[in-house]
Amino acid sequence: MTELRPRRWALGVEYDGRCFHGWQTQGPAPHALGDGLAGRVLPTIQDALENALSQIADRPIQVMCAGRTDAGVHATGQVVHFDTTANRPDTAWVRGVNALLPHACAIRWARAVPDDFHARFSATGRHYRYILLNRPERPAVFAGRIGWFHRPLDTALMAEAARSILGTHDFSAFRAAECQANSPIRTLTEARIVRHRDWLVFDFAANAFLQHMIRNLVGALVHIGKGGAAPGLMAEWLLQQDRTVAPPTFMPDGLYLTGVDYDVSLSLPSFDRTGQAGDPIGIFTL
Amino acid sequence: MTELRPRRWALGVEYDGRCFHGWQTQGPAPHALGDGLAGRVLPTIQDALENALSQIADRPIQVMCAGRTDAGVHATGQVVHFDTTANRPDTAWVRGVNALLPHACAIRWARAVPDDFHARFSATGRHYRYILLNRPERPAVFAGRIGWFHRPLDTALMAEAARSILGTHDFSAFRAAECQANSPIRTLTEARIVRHRDWLVFDFAANAFLQHMIRNLVGALVHIGKGGAAPGLMAEWLLQQDRTVAPPTFMPDGLYLTGVDYDVSLSLPSFDRTGQAGDPIGIFTL
Repeated sequence: MTELRPRRWALGVEYDGRCFHGWQTQGPAPHALGDGLAGRVLPTIQDALENALSQIADRPIQVMCAGRTDAGVHATGQVVHFDTTANRPDTAWVRGVNALLPHACAIRWARAVPDDFHARFSATGRHYRYILLNRPERPAVFAGRIGWFHRPLDTALMAEAARSILGTHDFSAFRAAECQANSPIRTLTEARIVRHRDWLVFDFAANAFLQHMIRNLVGALVHIGKGGAAPGLMAEWLLQQDRTVAPPTFMPDGLYLTGVDYDVSLSLPSFDRTGQAGDPIGIFTL
Repeated sequence: MTELRPRRWALGVEYDGRCFHGWQTQGPAPHALGDGLAGRVLPTIQDALENALSQIADRPIQVMCAGRTDAGVHATGQVVHFDTTANRPDTAWVRGVNALLPHACAIRWARAVPDDFHARFSATGRHYRYILLNRPERPAVFAGRIGWFHRPLDTALMAEAARSILGTHDFSAFRAAECQANSPIRTLTEARIVRHRDWLVFDFAANAFLQHMIRNLVGALVHIGKGGAAPGLMAEWLLQQDRTVAPPTFMPDGLYLTGVDYDVSLSLPSFDRTGQAGDPIGIFTL
């Protein structure tokens, strides 16, 4: 039998973060949550993916992702890559793997990629959406899949504040203490907020994000929206570069990694969000 | 201490049906599902509501609902009524009860109503929405909260078929064998289907629905949409009044009870769906 040269694959992955212990394998997980469907105990997303892929490949597979999402954060457009000598058609990496994954995780596409492709280091941009329900009563149907704030929010003030921090800055004010990035400098290319009745949709894009950066930005914008600070404070907090001065981190529940940008020459499937920021249809299709 | 005359209350209720054993109390529930949030074992929706309300009232409370939803069916606009001698402000029946309910169930409003109000018998109309994801890959983020069909569907043919059965008819062809309604005659006042990219939104309204009626209608419409039958067959199935001839029941996952109509003089909170059928915003706000 000829041992094939390893081939590199990229996958588009969707998951409900509430059903997993975050992205990254951390050894045995003692207190996994149920998946809300069959009450099963689930590992991390990386564990679930590697387990299903390894079964299809019939040999161990390790995956590398574009963005390690926190516990409770969801994805509709996560991208991972892996290497394998197993020779399988594209459909095996989608339908075959989906048959083995927990209900709360699914592969959306699979593509063979060049050997130097790297899900994380080849990525030129990341897109996140935060969905917030703004009404007095807490959510039930989408509990855990959306954020919630009970007091009225002034969306215009929030949108103004969001726009004021676009561009390349030191984002230390919105960076988790445990963040391991080498530099706090990031380029924020999109920061939009649109209201649809009781729903606020935040769209953020950047070359990359620091740990908890979006949840910290949403926390600050909600603080401004409820009248806790003037919109001009957003840029001041940024300049102060001090996490302890800016408002608290917001809950992970409403946060979705919606897409990752790569060189167009790779022709990876895009979710074509062009012009869709705040698009109401996109609220549901993410 | 003066024992107060019992007062009748109406409540608007939202729930994720996937986390409960259907609506109705059926004695001890041996195999309850987790709620997807803390892995807790949950009873029926009626059990959960009566338990929380009885704690607030400090005496037993029984509820009566407008529409007994099947296991796995959700609601954003269920209405219930109950009687109690407990004298509590409106907010106790909303915020107080929500603090005691499982995450997958929430009260949206509470109103004192006349003694002759009945959540079920006073209702003049019911509104249901079915949300269907139509793409090759199964859903993950909204698994269990939306329906799914993997092959392409022709929405125009489906909409034509849906329109053909509007009006007052014998709906035996779309009625579950175990349905306990006295008559199979119902008046269907709305049957609309709108596509938003990969999402199909079905809106149905009638004076009342038979058991499994909407899931059977959706099953028939999907069969037509995938090219399994001409749209004209919809009206023929209806005329044949034979459940065994019409296509199979569709999964409950995407079905939501979105509202119940009562006499306007009652001034019960409405979710104001006027003109919103198929409204993309409404996909998420239901």
